[in-house]
Amino acid sequence: MILTTLFCQLDELQRRGVHHFIIAYSGGLDSQTLLDGCHAYKLQHPHLQLSACHVHHGLSDNADQWLQHCQKSCQQLAIPLTFEHVQVAKGNRQSLEAVAREARYRVFESLVDRADCAVLTGHHQDDQIETLFLSLKRGSGLDGLSAMPALMPFANGLLARPMLQLSRSELQQFAEAQQLSWIEDESNQDDKFDRNFIRNQLLPLCQQRWPGFNQAAGRSVGLLGQERTVLEELTAEDYSNCKRASALSIGALKSLSHGRRDRVLRHWLRLRQAPLWSHAQQQQAWLHVALAQQDAEPQLNWAGWQLRRYRDELHLLNDKTERPIEQIEWHWPKPLTLPNGKLRAFVTDSGTERLREPTDDQSVTIRFGQLKKRVRPANRNGSRELKKVWQEMAVAPWLRQHIPLVFYDEECVAAVGYWIAKDYLCQPGESGWHIELKC
Amino acid sequence: MILTTLFCQLDELQRRGVHHFIIAYSGGLDSQTLLDGCHAYKLQHPHLQLSACHVHHGLSDNADQWLQHCQKSCQQLAIPLTFEHVQVAKGNRQSLEAVAREARYRVFESLVDRADCAVLTGHHQDDQIETLFLSLKRGSGLDGLSAMPALMPFANGLLARPMLQLSRSELQQFAEAQQLSWIEDESNQDDKFDRNFIRNQLLPLCQQRWPGFNQAAGRSVGLLGQERTVLEELTAEDYSNCKRASALSIGALKSLSHGRRDRVLRHWLRLRQAPLWSHAQQQQAWLHVALAQQDAEPQLNWAGWQLRRYRDELHLLNDKTERPIEQIEWHWPKPLTLPNGKLRAFVTDSGTERLREPTDDQSVTIRFGQLKKRVRPANRNGSRELKKVWQEMAVAPWLRQHIPLVFYDEECVAAVGYWIAKDYLCQPGESGWHIELKC
Repeated sequence: MILTTLFCQLDELQRRGVHHFIIAYSGGLDSQTLLDGCHAYKLQHPHLQLSACHVHHGLSDNADQWLQHCQKSCQQLAIPLTFEHVQVAKGNRQSLEAVAREARYRVFESLVDRADCAVLTGHHQDDQIETLFLSLKRGSGLDGLSAMPALMPFANGLLARPMLQLSRSELQQFAEAQQLSWIEDESNQDDKFDRNFIRNQLLPLCQQRWPGFNQAAGRSVGLLGQERTVLEELTAEDYSNCKRASALSIGALKSLSHGRRDRVLRHWLRLRQAPLWSHAQQQQAWLHVALAQQDAEPQLNWAGWQLRRYRDELHLLNDKTERPIEQIEWHWPKPLTLPNGKLRAFVTDSGTERLREPTDDQSVTIRFGQLKKRVRPANRNGSRELKKVWQEMAVAPWLRQHIPLVFYDEECVAAVGYWIAKDYLCQPGESGWHIELKC
Repeated sequence: MILTTLFCQLDELQRRGVHHFIIAYSGGLDSQTLLDGCHAYKLQHPHLQLSACHVHHGLSDNADQWLQHCQKSCQQLAIPLTFEHVQVAKGNRQSLEAVAREARYRVFESLVDRADCAVLTGHHQDDQIETLFLSLKRGSGLDGLSAMPALMPFANGLLARPMLQLSRSELQQFAEAQQLSWIEDESNQDDKFDRNFIRNQLLPLCQQRWPGFNQAAGRSVGLLGQERTVLEELTAEDYSNCKRASALSIGALKSLSHGRRDRVLRHWLRLRQAPLWSHAQQQQAWLHVALAQQDAEPQLNWAGWQLRRYRDELHLLNDKTERPIEQIEWHWPKPLTLPNGKLRAFVTDSGTERLREPTDDQSVTIRFGQLKKRVRPANRNGSRELKKVWQEMAVAPWLRQHIPLVFYDEECVAAVGYWIAKDYLCQPGESGWHIELKC
C-alpha cells in the first residue's frame, strides 16, 4: 500500500525527466523506509541511478554509529553512499535544528549538478502537521502554515518529497513488516525541542479526541498549499503588470487593492533578496514614499537598503548597487548578471526601439557612471555630454549611476531603458536587439 | 485599554454610516462586556441608537434566569432589550450548537431592516483560534481556517465583530475591574462539545508551553483572513472573465491553471447556490463534461442539479430552472429576478446590440418556452417560427426553454443573449437597452 503511493510519486519524477534519485539519508525510520522503497522501485526500473547521502553533524554522541549503520545498509542494497561531516556551531537549543538543516541542504545542493537529478527526502504527513503547529506558534500566514511542496526546483535539479501523503504510523508498519533496521535519534524524545513537544504531547491529545485528526489536518495543510500556489501565481501576474525595468510603477500599484499591493511589494523584495519589511515599514513605504508629494524626495532605509521614488516609479537600491562596476565584458547572447539585475538581448524586427547588432570584431561592454565623451541619443538633436542628457530627461542623480551603458568598442551605443544612439537605431523592419534588464 | 480597541472599531462603524448598534446579547462574559463597552461609547456619542437582543433557546434549565439577568442589566443601563423564544430541535449534541446558532442569526437578521443598522457580536480572539482548530479537525482549507471577518454585509445592514483583537482573559480582567455581573453557561464546561475541549484542554496545553501562543495564532488567523480576501478578489476576476451570460466559457477556463479553474467552478456553484462537488465530481465535471468530445452530450448529475456542455459553454441547470415560468411582468428599470438569474436593462448608445426602449403605454413581460407566432430576428432574413431560429442557431433543445424572451405587449422583441427583432434593433448612435442576465 505505501509502495503504491510512493511509486506513483516516483513515476511522476521520471515523467519530469529525473533519472538520478539521491536519497537524503539519516538512517532514521523515515529515510530508511524511503531508501528501501526506492531500492524496490529501482528493481523495476534498472536504468535509474540511485544513490544516498548522509550528513554527519557530530551533534549526537552516537553520530559515528549512525554513519556506520548507513554504510552497512547501503552496502547490503548496493546503493552508493556519499557522506559529509559538517560543523554546526551550537547556539541556543531551539535554533540548533534550523542551523543543522541549513548545513544539510547546502551539502545536498552541491550534489544536484544536473537537471535530471533530484534529492528525495523522507518527509511525511506528520511532519507537515508539526510544521503547521510550529508556524501557528510563530504567527505565520499562509506561507508558513501551508504544506511543504511535494516537488520544487533545487540547485540545478529538483527537491522531491514523495511520502507527504503517508503517515508516520504507516511508515512504521511498513518498516516493521519488512524487518528494516533503523536508528532512533535519542533527541526525538527530548521535549525541549518544540517539534518533539508537538509530536509527543499535542498531536496525541488531538488524535485521542478525534481519531481522524491527523488525516484531516493533513488535508487542511494540503488545501492551504494549493491555495498558496494560486495566490503566488496571481501575485506574480500583478507584479509583472507593475514592473518597469527594475522599478515598480506607482500608478499600477495604486490600481490594486490593499492586500494585492502588499503582496506585490513583498514579492519584489524577495526577488531582489532584500530583507522583508515589518508591518510599520510596509505602511511607511506606501504612505510616505510612494504617496509622498510630487516634489518631495522621500526614502525608506532598512538593513543597508533604500526605497526611493522617482516620478511614478519605486526603486530599490542597496549598498552593493551603490558601488557601480566600472566596466564588464558582455559575452552575448549569454545573459549578463549585473548588481541590479540580469541583462538580456533578444533579436527582433518588431516592437520597441531596437539596437543594431555589433559586428563580429566589436567587443561589447557594459559600463556605469559618468562619461567624458559626448553621446548622440536618437531622440535628441546633435551630441552632448551624458550629464546633460540625464538632466534633459529629468533622470534623478542617484538613479543615473545604476543605468547600464552599452559600449561597442569605445563607443556608447545605448543606455538600457532610456535611449539608443542615433547611428545604432534600427530602421522600421530592420532586425536588431531589444535589451532588457530583469531582476 | 480594551475600550480603546473597542472604540476604534465602533468609530469605524460610524464612519461607514451605522447609527444603530444592536448587541447580540446572551448575558455571558463576552456580550456583557460588549454591552457595557458600547454603553460607555454611547455616553460620548449620544446621537447613536443602542439596543440589545436576547435569544431564548430553552436549551438550559437556567434559560429563564438568563433572560431575567439580561432584562435587569439592560434596565440598569437604560438600553432597550428585545427578546425572542426559539425552538431548537435537539438532534445529536455536536450539531446542537450549529442549529442554535442558525436560529439566533435568523432572529438577528429580522432586526436589521435598514442600511444604518449593525448587529454586534462578542466574538474575540480565542473564538477565532477555537474555530481554527475545529476547521483543522474537519480538514478545511483557507475558508474554514481563516478568521471570521470583523465586518460583513448582513440582511439589509452589517454584522460587526468589534472585539476580535481582544483575548478572553482581557475581557475577563475588564469585566472584573468594572464589577460587571454575567451569567456562566454551564454547558461551556462540558467537554462533550469539541469547542469546549479545545478551550479547556488543547489551548491551555499550548499556552502553558508557549505563553504567547494565543496571540501568535490569532495573528496567523488574521493573516489567513487577509490572504483569503485577496484570493476571493482574484477568483471573482477570473470568474467574470469566464462568464458568458449564465454560462461559463470552457475556452476561458482552459487558459487558467488547475487551481484557479477549480476555484472559478466552485465560485460559480456557490453563486448559483448549488451544492459543492466532491473531489471526484470536480474531476468528472472537468474531464468528462467540459473536455468531452465535441459530438458527445455529456452531463453530470448531483443533488437535483445538472452540469451540461453546449458548444464552448458549461451550463448549470436545476429542477427549479427546468420548470420555466410562463410569463412575468417586468417593472423596469428595476432588475427582475428569474429562476436562472437577475435581468437588468442599461440604457446606452454604444457597444453591443441595443433594443429600442418600450413606449410608455407598452407593457413589458418576460416569457419562456415555445411560441406559436413567428419572430423576425435582425440577423436573419424574413420571419419564421422560433423553433426554426433555434435550430439555425444550433441552440440545444434543453437550453431553449431557459432563454428569457422579451415581449412588448404581445410582440416578441428579443431573446436575451441571442437576438433582437429587426424592427427593434437600434441604429448606430441611437440609444437603447443593453439587457443582461446575471446570476
